[in-house]
Amino acid sequence: MNGAESLVQTLLDGGVEVCFTNPGTSEMHFVAALDEVPGMRCVLCLFEGVVSGAADGYARMAEKPASTLLHLGPGLGNAIANLHNARKGNVGIVNIVGDHATYHVKYDAPLTADIEGLARPVSQWVRTSQSAAELPGDTAEAVAQARRGQIATLILPADASWGNDSPGAVGIPELPEPALADEEDLAAAIAALSLGAKCMVLIGGVHVSRERAAQMDRLAQSCGVRVALDGFMTRVAGGEGMPPLERIPYFAEKAISVFENLEHIILLGCKPPVSFFAYPGISSVLTQEHCQVHRLTGPWDDIDDTLEKLVSAAGAAELVPRSLPCEPPELIPGALSEKSVAAAFAHYLPADAIVVDEAVTSGALCYPFAERARRHDWMMETGGAIGWGIPAAVGAAVACPERKVVCLSGDGSAMYTVQGLWTIAREALDVTVIIFANQRYAILEIEFARTGARGGIPGPNAAQMLHLGNPELDFLQLAGGMGIHATRAETADQFIEQYSKAVTTTGPHLIEVMMLDTRA
Amino acid sequence: MNGAESLVQTLLDGGVEVCFTNPGTSEMHFVAALDEVPGMRCVLCLFEGVVSGAADGYARMAEKPASTLLHLGPGLGNAIANLHNARKGNVGIVNIVGDHATYHVKYDAPLTADIEGLARPVSQWVRTSQSAAELPGDTAEAVAQARRGQIATLILPADASWGNDSPGAVGIPELPEPALADEEDLAAAIAALSLGAKCMVLIGGVHVSRERAAQMDRLAQSCGVRVALDGFMTRVAGGEGMPPLERIPYFAEKAISVFENLEHIILLGCKPPVSFFAYPGISSVLTQEHCQVHRLTGPWDDIDDTLEKLVSAAGAAELVPRSLPCEPPELIPGALSEKSVAAAFAHYLPADAIVVDEAVTSGALCYPFAERARRHDWMMETGGAIGWGIPAAVGAAVACPERKVVCLSGDGSAMYTVQGLWTIAREALDVTVIIFANQRYAILEIEFARTGARGGIPGPNAAQMLHLGNPELDFLQLAGGMGIHATRAETADQFIEQYSKAVTTTGPHLIEVMMLDTRA
Repeated sequence: MNGAESLVQTLLDGGVEVCFTNPGTSEMHFVAALDEVPGMRCVLCLFEGVVSGAADGYARMAEKPASTLLHLGPGLGNAIANLHNARKGNVGIVNIVGDHATYHVKYDAPLTADIEGLARPVSQWVRTSQSAAELPGDTAEAVAQARRGQIATLILPADASWGNDSPGAVGIPELPEPALADEEDLAAAIAALSLGAKCMVLIGGVHVSRERAAQMDRLAQSCGVRVALDGFMTRVAGGEGMPPLERIPYFAEKAISVFENLEHIILLGCKPPVSFFAYPGISSVLTQEHCQVHRLTGPWDDIDDTLEKLVSAAGAAELVPRSLPCEPPELIPGALSEKSVAAAFAHYLPADAIVVDEAVTSGALCYPFAERARRHDWMMETGGAIGWGIPAAVGAAVACPERKVVCLSGDGSAMYTVQGLWTIAREALDVTVIIFANQRYAILEIEFARTGARGGIPGPNAAQMLHLGNPELDFLQLAGGMGIHATRAETADQFIEQYSKAVTTTGPHLIEVMMLDTRA
Repeated sequence: MNGAESLVQTLLDGGVEVCFTNPGTSEMHFVAALDEVPGMRCVLCLFEGVVSGAADGYARMAEKPASTLLHLGPGLGNAIANLHNARKGNVGIVNIVGDHATYHVKYDAPLTADIEGLARPVSQWVRTSQSAAELPGDTAEAVAQARRGQIATLILPADASWGNDSPGAVGIPELPEPALADEEDLAAAIAALSLGAKCMVLIGGVHVSRERAAQMDRLAQSCGVRVALDGFMTRVAGGEGMPPLERIPYFAEKAISVFENLEHIILLGCKPPVSFFAYPGISSVLTQEHCQVHRLTGPWDDIDDTLEKLVSAAGAAELVPRSLPCEPPELIPGALSEKSVAAAFAHYLPADAIVVDEAVTSGALCYPFAERARRHDWMMETGGAIGWGIPAAVGAAVACPERKVVCLSGDGSAMYTVQGLWTIAREALDVTVIIFANQRYAILEIEFARTGARGGIPGPNAAQMLHLGNPELDFLQLAGGMGIHATRAETADQFIEQYSKAVTTTGPHLIEVMMLDTRA
């Protein structure tokens, strides 16, 4: 058994059954091993940002890691933006990067690069396997790290792949149990619960399942505390049967006012809330100075145990959690608007759909409109690096082939990793992509005003940097060029017709929604 | 004057007149400054790999650096592959990466990342400017570094941009003179010239102009030494009036046989020749063990002085260099083949065209077929990171608006940074893009066989990783979706008609050449 074969077998034995790939010459023995060792589903992507984003989306839904296969430093470079998003969302990936043979690196051939240096800023674990003998053990440790929500980058020299002295597959090491909350911190938090609405329990950086949401609601019902989701959620359940939960807004001023009257904030999974960006004259920290922060459990700690102890201390364990009814919004026919699209989106959202949300501005109403839609899961961009939506939809659809994936994307965002459409077509994934085509970086127009630069009014050069309308992107042709059937909606009625059909049939479809003149 | 304005003014004063951009919120004061300080040409790209590749192509033709503008760690991540190519080609870039305000970084907001850590593997110079007061001085140093062919990454915190305590623009520091070759090394190299064909002068990693090529030829004529170009050239003159020069082949076995009988190799600009990749049983070093290597001048040293001293020692200063005539190849009508496309390409290549070459396999004949074409310049991918061609064509066309740019690209390569087509359309650049559509990673099929993995025969999983045919990419639609007029050639006659028209008219055009069945 050569190194590559023992690597693939170790992955499979460790439950890593999908490999998103964009290989090169130094990875050919790995590619060969994908046939020698049966069982790995290989999904080719035409760009490495699709690879890493797909691995992220897969792990969020499968609740176990996928593997990547990238080609040396530049291949890793292309994957970095979506590795960043995964890392910020505490999503595990076995990130495999091919390298030259160990003895070849010193010659500084054209593709030689400091791969470890590139990997470290986006990985919690980095190792270069030095031989076929070490490779399966290193692989097993990478799988263990990825299972606990870390980016584990395993660098794979070509001679470690082709070397024939591998001991064969190695079992995955046991992980330490997730840490429990510190007892003193917990006691202080329990005391804070009695302050009712002056206390907030904020959860983020993890999957907020229906069970976790129910526990949050028991605290709200029993103590009157506020319970809230972080602004950008790795994964959160939604729709019918969920309790009501606040969501922290994106814009700092709004978030500051949300936190204004709080005296205590109890954090589960997430860090103390800070502004997404810095602005002149606006505080980075969003809570008031006197607000006491209880950081009970990080994303890898035992959140369920902490929730149980809080609920139990509140005497709320037997409380029946509140549950929103299934009351999807009415359709709003006529002209296109952010409301009419959001209403139709939520109206037809099928049960158990997975929503992948990268609709930066024009789709912002989709989330609140779906509050009483059929039950679903929602994934958001956790690291702020756009170009995540289409790739994450690829991964979610591979993880859950029986569920409809609806991908909400801005036109600007979609262009970063538009190559993901090809993989959706090739794998015949059940994804409906909605492109909110406003032909601008609309968020940057808003941010330009907010930063106060040049009095908030872009000059001609700046305006050119924010507008995408010249030439107009045509997503019907872009999608068609990659084998995806696409339609264009210029009215709400057209959107309703196209979207209702897309979500009630199976397979890839893209709808370009012309939002250009809908903001008035 | 705020920091951003002093930055832009320092760039302009330093001759950096073009900024390829993909900005975000933290860069809004920079974007605003582009209107407050007039004179910067701003070119928006929809993906950062286009930004960095365009800055590379620009600098190779303009012989001075452009600037980038990237958005935090993920924006830099997306630019890394083409920064790698530029670095390996010794091409200078003022690589500007926006960051959070200095005081905001410690809060680890979603977009916070170790930007310096990501930058170092692809930059020779990295600095985070700590304030508006420091920014213009840091900018001036970045320009100086980029001028001598280095990647200078200047990290720009938002508060250094918006701060109002800038001293204003700062002059660019003087560079030390390029180093001269060591006299002892030079004497040894001069002695080796007398060995005739057992000695080779190899140049690479720099611009090989007509003047440098002429000097090489004087050595060949006077001493009978072999004179050669490295396999992947930053920029090399070609066509009418050039002397004949060998070019080192890509495949290691072929390169080893090219170097077989050498006893001395004199290096100008480039490193000792090594195999692009490692293969089991094939040497990494391409020259024989007994071959003596004379590494006279690195890419930033005084190559012209060294050449002059060699020529003078050979008594060849007065020799008239040989000069290839203008004899473009005859057309080969009928079916498409690598030969018929290469012949037509060279036949119609207009005088002073710039060829940007990322045609990995199907376009390999274009270079030898153009040997006696009209005079032109040729740029190659110097770091092996594909996705360079279309962006580099953007940059070359911005640098030389009066010259036709012909971009040769594989279909697989083109997909990495296909967003560059939009910038070609927006800026109405005079670029003809030729896509060699063979619907596969053909180089990987060859490499799979060469590595000997699985006996050289891909199994079903591996074959899926190497083929792009399902679904077929349609570059007519992809180009149309980004505002580029495109045509498809299925016969040599169609290619001849479409290409001859494209290169005799001005403006963007793409030709998809269907190479699928042409390899027999």
